[in-house]
Amino acid sequence: MNAPLVPPPGIASCPVPRRILMGPGPSDMPPRVVAALGHPAIGHLDPDFVRMMEEIKLLLRYAFQTNNALTFAVSGPGSVGMETCFVNLVEPGDKVIVCRNGVFGGRMIENVQRFGGTAVIVEDAWGEPVDPQKVAEALAAHPDARAVAFVHAETSTGAQSDAATLIGLARAKGALAIVDTVTSLGGTPVLADAWGADAIYSGSQKCLSCVPGLAPVTFSARAVERVKARKGKVPSWFMDLGLVLEYWSAPGGKRTYHHTAPVNSLFALHESLVMLKDEGLENAWARHRLHHEALKAGFETLGLQFVVREDARLPQLNAVHVPAGIDEAGVRKQLLEKFNLEIGAGLGPLAGKVWRFGLMGYSARRENVELCLRALADVLSGMGQAKDQRAALAAAESVYARPVR
Amino acid sequence: MNAPLVPPPGIASCPVPRRILMGPGPSDMPPRVVAALGHPAIGHLDPDFVRMMEEIKLLLRYAFQTNNALTFAVSGPGSVGMETCFVNLVEPGDKVIVCRNGVFGGRMIENVQRFGGTAVIVEDAWGEPVDPQKVAEALAAHPDARAVAFVHAETSTGAQSDAATLIGLARAKGALAIVDTVTSLGGTPVLADAWGADAIYSGSQKCLSCVPGLAPVTFSARAVERVKARKGKVPSWFMDLGLVLEYWSAPGGKRTYHHTAPVNSLFALHESLVMLKDEGLENAWARHRLHHEALKAGFETLGLQFVVREDARLPQLNAVHVPAGIDEAGVRKQLLEKFNLEIGAGLGPLAGKVWRFGLMGYSARRENVELCLRALADVLSGMGQAKDQRAALAAAESVYARPVR
Repeated sequence: MNAPLVPPPGIASCPVPRRILMGPGPSDMPPRVVAALGHPAIGHLDPDFVRMMEEIKLLLRYAFQTNNALTFAVSGPGSVGMETCFVNLVEPGDKVIVCRNGVFGGRMIENVQRFGGTAVIVEDAWGEPVDPQKVAEALAAHPDARAVAFVHAETSTGAQSDAATLIGLARAKGALAIVDTVTSLGGTPVLADAWGADAIYSGSQKCLSCVPGLAPVTFSARAVERVKARKGKVPSWFMDLGLVLEYWSAPGGKRTYHHTAPVNSLFALHESLVMLKDEGLENAWARHRLHHEALKAGFETLGLQFVVREDARLPQLNAVHVPAGIDEAGVRKQLLEKFNLEIGAGLGPLAGKVWRFGLMGYSARRENVELCLRALADVLSGMGQAKDQRAALAAAESVYARPVR
Repeated sequence: MNAPLVPPPGIASCPVPRRILMGPGPSDMPPRVVAALGHPAIGHLDPDFVRMMEEIKLLLRYAFQTNNALTFAVSGPGSVGMETCFVNLVEPGDKVIVCRNGVFGGRMIENVQRFGGTAVIVEDAWGEPVDPQKVAEALAAHPDARAVAFVHAETSTGAQSDAATLIGLARAKGALAIVDTVTSLGGTPVLADAWGADAIYSGSQKCLSCVPGLAPVTFSARAVERVKARKGKVPSWFMDLGLVLEYWSAPGGKRTYHHTAPVNSLFALHESLVMLKDEGLENAWARHRLHHEALKAGFETLGLQFVVREDARLPQLNAVHVPAGIDEAGVRKQLLEKFNLEIGAGLGPLAGKVWRFGLMGYSARRENVELCLRALADVLSGMGQAKDQRAALAAAESVYARPVR
């Protein structure tokens, strides 16, 4: 048998550059996680792998601060985690209150509509947290709303919303609460049980500092009941929680074949969750806060203005306005080419107007903060806006020199 | 802020065992692919990564033997590749002829039904290829069928169906042809354009010998037109080809942010596709055939019977009946524990009755064939069925000693 088409010319193994990742994700992976990832695969039904899956469930419960039985990692990016929540919990005709204050609230609306629901949209400006007053009003105006959905940590702006309050409002009206914690899990407190959340999804490649491509999720008993009470089948085979449940089943139970798990990515997730557990959640949150404060001190010296007001600012996602007269994309290009440093651009209405600096997981460390300040001062100075690199570094230094509280 | 729940006790970094993977997938990864996987991540919008994505598209076109513009890797397991085909191409009310001769045809039926279509089921026994005569009859009885879907290489049985003939029947009636090549791509000829297929999906972890978690797909211009002509939105945000198109867009085009690509898995896929290109498709097919013949010669010496008749047998997936009186699961357990050798069990009606031996990608090599024969003879002999290990190895040896044709 012949293959009639010839191979494409001039393609060989790619030399992958080394980067320092300070964009909105993926973040740098610690060497231990990289090593775990690079172990030759074993079978997804191997007893050693099944044991690892059980441990991942326990470790994710700790990370999400929940006792929810249905806590696992969806075999796909965060967007598949989002879709897993909505495709299971939204039935045709359902009304869902969706809060939009950035890109990802908009994606939630798409999800609700594509699964036959009606989205009642609560709008806040990009860069603002979700306004609980508006949510309360929407719930009062729509007492038949079956769920409230919002983004805890808007990756597109760096704004953090008050999850406990928003979930409390939903629960008081008998609505489920669906929460996006893609950028918060492991970086700022995510307290699934204390909040009373019903469905939470996240991503592996942000503050967990794992490889991109996995979406940790957790569902409350109420959410599971809602899925079981559906009138029709879930309009997805892959994401149907009824089938996934049999796959990520209880220890000792017979595990049903569902799909071939991304075993290497799960090796890496296991390792990153062990590292998070060993550090301790409180310490991880404090570390993100510390490096954010150092970066902020340096940024202020450089005259950069944050997009988000201080009390709603995510330490792990720092969005700042591009100074007037500066070529936004040109700065990112120079940072990448001269310093191997990746930072993020703005999205939607913020495109071309802001930069986004991530301090997520393993990227949240002193050498990254210092490199970032040094490189940014250098590039801005080269563009004719003289910046005092030493002053920026000294400002960061003064934060690190503070006594530990 | 406190984390009220304590971490789970007794969990540490997992020592992952080394295995030789001769089950139905994942297959062994070559060291070059493992090395590519384990490179620290770079950003999914990094210019070097975007270049790699362009190369992956070209390399996949060669692997699929197609000039289809819309050829890329879905960021999820093969099941998500399947769902991407059906969720885009099936509209509510559509009639789809689905051929079922194993597990994966059954999954296709689920897909059609969950997206509001009606499945006209063409049944063949597990272990048989799809009967073209039955498909022709179904097409005659259902002239309004919008598509015909079948599995080229049934992983649950090891049967290969005649894709060219089945697709020809569909095309003659104006129906689209949707084909599962999860287990065939890279192992036996997949000739998308010569066949005239409209939608093909595959998996990364079989004959491509890449990490599990990616699903190569290709769509014909007719399929793209069908998607564009849909009355309603695709009932999935993540899998909507209209959005994915903008993401995996043409070189030079502006790439729209869609989701964070699983960059490390794509490093690995790039490397495995470069290796396939360098070997050449014809050589890869011949290699799978050679090692299958050696394994078969050994199996016959051991008195094992194949499930599938010779002319429909997949070289890369060898299903054999468990000899009478033998503890099926016990043999697999011993192979794993004594020899670190993973083989596959039967599924559905074949559960407990067959073993499945994969010779996929990097697993298709002489040392694996010899280990498998040695280990199986050893374990069966230990269970009281005396087997001549030397004769089995000599039979394989005689195949390797044949002059190259």
